[in-house]
Amino acid sequence: MTTITSVDVYDVRFPTSLTADGSDAMNKDGDYSAAYVVLRTDEEGVAGYGFTFTIGRGNDICALAAEQRAEPLVGRDVDEIVGDLGGIYRELKSDSQLRWLGPEKGVEHLAMAAVMNAVWDLAARRANKPLWRLLTDMTPEQLVDTADLKYLSDAITRDEAIALLTELADSKEQRIAELTETGYPCYTTSAGWLGYSDEKLRRLCQEAVDAGYRHIKLKVGANLDEDIRRCRIAREVIGDDAKLMIDANQVWDVDEAIDWVKALAEFKPLWIEEPTSPDDVLGHAAIRKAVAPIGVATGEHGMNRVLFKQMFQAEAIDFCQLDSARLAGPNEIIAVYLMAKKFGVPVCPHAGGVGLCELVQHLSIFDYVAVSGTLENRVTEFVDHLHEHFVDPCIVENGAYRVPMAPGYSAQMHESSLAEFSFPAGSYWAGVAASVAS
Amino acid sequence: MTTITSVDVYDVRFPTSLTADGSDAMNKDGDYSAAYVVLRTDEEGVAGYGFTFTIGRGNDICALAAEQRAEPLVGRDVDEIVGDLGGIYRELKSDSQLRWLGPEKGVEHLAMAAVMNAVWDLAARRANKPLWRLLTDMTPEQLVDTADLKYLSDAITRDEAIALLTELADSKEQRIAELTETGYPCYTTSAGWLGYSDEKLRRLCQEAVDAGYRHIKLKVGANLDEDIRRCRIAREVIGDDAKLMIDANQVWDVDEAIDWVKALAEFKPLWIEEPTSPDDVLGHAAIRKAVAPIGVATGEHGMNRVLFKQMFQAEAIDFCQLDSARLAGPNEIIAVYLMAKKFGVPVCPHAGGVGLCELVQHLSIFDYVAVSGTLENRVTEFVDHLHEHFVDPCIVENGAYRVPMAPGYSAQMHESSLAEFSFPAGSYWAGVAASVAS
Repeated sequence: MTTITSVDVYDVRFPTSLTADGSDAMNKDGDYSAAYVVLRTDEEGVAGYGFTFTIGRGNDICALAAEQRAEPLVGRDVDEIVGDLGGIYRELKSDSQLRWLGPEKGVEHLAMAAVMNAVWDLAARRANKPLWRLLTDMTPEQLVDTADLKYLSDAITRDEAIALLTELADSKEQRIAELTETGYPCYTTSAGWLGYSDEKLRRLCQEAVDAGYRHIKLKVGANLDEDIRRCRIAREVIGDDAKLMIDANQVWDVDEAIDWVKALAEFKPLWIEEPTSPDDVLGHAAIRKAVAPIGVATGEHGMNRVLFKQMFQAEAIDFCQLDSARLAGPNEIIAVYLMAKKFGVPVCPHAGGVGLCELVQHLSIFDYVAVSGTLENRVTEFVDHLHEHFVDPCIVENGAYRVPMAPGYSAQMHESSLAEFSFPAGSYWAGVAASVAS
Repeated sequence: MTTITSVDVYDVRFPTSLTADGSDAMNKDGDYSAAYVVLRTDEEGVAGYGFTFTIGRGNDICALAAEQRAEPLVGRDVDEIVGDLGGIYRELKSDSQLRWLGPEKGVEHLAMAAVMNAVWDLAARRANKPLWRLLTDMTPEQLVDTADLKYLSDAITRDEAIALLTELADSKEQRIAELTETGYPCYTTSAGWLGYSDEKLRRLCQEAVDAGYRHIKLKVGANLDEDIRRCRIAREVIGDDAKLMIDANQVWDVDEAIDWVKALAEFKPLWIEEPTSPDDVLGHAAIRKAVAPIGVATGEHGMNRVLFKQMFQAEAIDFCQLDSARLAGPNEIIAVYLMAKKFGVPVCPHAGGVGLCELVQHLSIFDYVAVSGTLENRVTEFVDHLHEHFVDPCIVENGAYRVPMAPGYSAQMHESSLAEFSFPAGSYWAGVAASVAS
């Protein structure tokens, strides 16, 4: 028997605020961070790695919450846990005292994501499969048993979920072969951060086109005149055929969003992302109605499956951008994919930050192979930052994620990265503190 | 000049799980707790006290989050801060790195509530007024300036808010005089916790009736046959004229809620409280439509004003049960009261726990005097637990809160209570640890 002997949680922060990478109208100075969970066992080489993503301050709070949430795992049999991934999820989430602090949202939910991502990574490694393969090898019944369908039965029943998975079950290998050939299409946000100069924007757009991208995303929402100028530059560089997406990071009220987006309509954006509060289902529905045919996209702050259920029910979004480190691990993410399939909404996962690209490539592949069966209107975010800290980094070629083949969820960081960027004691941050003091 | 010199945060936990006080279908073993914030100053006798409420584990996480959130207050001029309560709220909430962890929900929002409750307590003490009086003495413009209307303009504009407050401005003193006479009506949940025996339920219902209560609330949702039996007992004791409310604490899916509530309809409940996920606006709307004329109530887990906006817009609730320690202090609470007034939904605040009754009495009085101007369909929760820990405890007589007259938000705890129940070093918890060890 292999036993989980300890849970080590690291507060890892990268000083991205120094270069304005990741700057947008709401988030001007993020330090991309991870509350990083390692499930250690008494068997050499057997461990699970997972994380949630934050942008700096408060990452310690998420780390502490993850430590508490993971406590029931210590001393448990690895094979029992990975043999019932739905059961361990329900056990961890059923702590009623911790539930009060959400429920199922905010810090506690981010912590649950970190822990469950590590549990699934462990399960995939134990099975000697990349996570996407662990998922696509499951039967419809097994998949639905791991999914969290609580509060969703008015949108999708267990039987409906099994039926829609069963439809695609026989053709899975064919789609795996196809993706192994072509990769999964992605788009880049690296070009369009708000803090970049016009010259840098123009150069990065050109580089993106040259690298094979057919979708480019710009941050907007701080100043309308500047947005118009920057959209014009982007359109000039990428041409009329490529897709331009715009992203306001929640800065507007509903009516303001409608007016602003209409003022950018001449640039034919494919979608407006996060036009207003991520909690505002009815607001997104109103915006969507008003700005069509421009699509509405949201989800990186979509707090849980109940929020997404309502986004689907209210026909509030054209693109579902679920976040792999904000939803509570694959258990909840599978439920959102199942609803998205039923309601006919494409899922284009949020990525970027640190490590999110490593996770979402597995999810997008799983979606195409086992749930949606289509690539239509689907494109997964890619940001070319911080991949060097991962043992099994994602690989993007010609505007597409290559299919990852190493066992696990690609979540493991290099020991050297932990040593350098752990906060506040890692060598990088200790150095900053020393230079401030001197 | 008086300066804030430090922020002390206490993790205070009361062992309520020992007596099944507070037990319901979702929360079986809560230890009522407070992340308790003290703003200390360099002037003798000047301080601000506030808290958020939790039910045990994770209270330390809220305390740590409150400590971080309050950091910008240290070293600041008290009069500058209490002179611009909208400004300090916006400053504290604008930390974009912490915002990522919500936004405006979960642990970070609970922490914001604790800090802003302390700031408002300090402001009321500085003005030598109880909080309700500080609020009712403000002009409509001043009140609206403190309120957080971000993301709400599609439901209520600043001008609309000022107009509705102005309508009642001239008659405020008259309603204050009336409440000083009669008190603000309340109901009791003390009778109906799920863990109590039939005999205890019968006795407590009788005691409530004898004490002047006209509303009694029962917890339901664990077992339908038992619910029927317990509702029958309650109706027998309280008679047909008194109001019976039922509370499921989020245990049901939408369709399940509809079926279960219909099975209890013969007992003519005034409302079903928390029938499903607190995030499910559309679900509450569907339930409300199906179970009418039984009302739908929710709000103790209503995460922020954007959630309440949608509950109003979707006509999802008959009673708004906002929580004084979950919304981010009076700044956000005022915004919800303004919307409730506009949409014609009575606010019956959630209370109980520890200290919530102390806070909500101020809010209910403020509502009657300055916002709604009516007591129709309004009744505020009261639970007779743990008041002995407060320096200025609420006083309930003949089914009504007496109007509190001491300066502040009634949030200050006795030093002796902190010494006994701070976790884990207070004398009570140290004693528990010692007896477990021996």
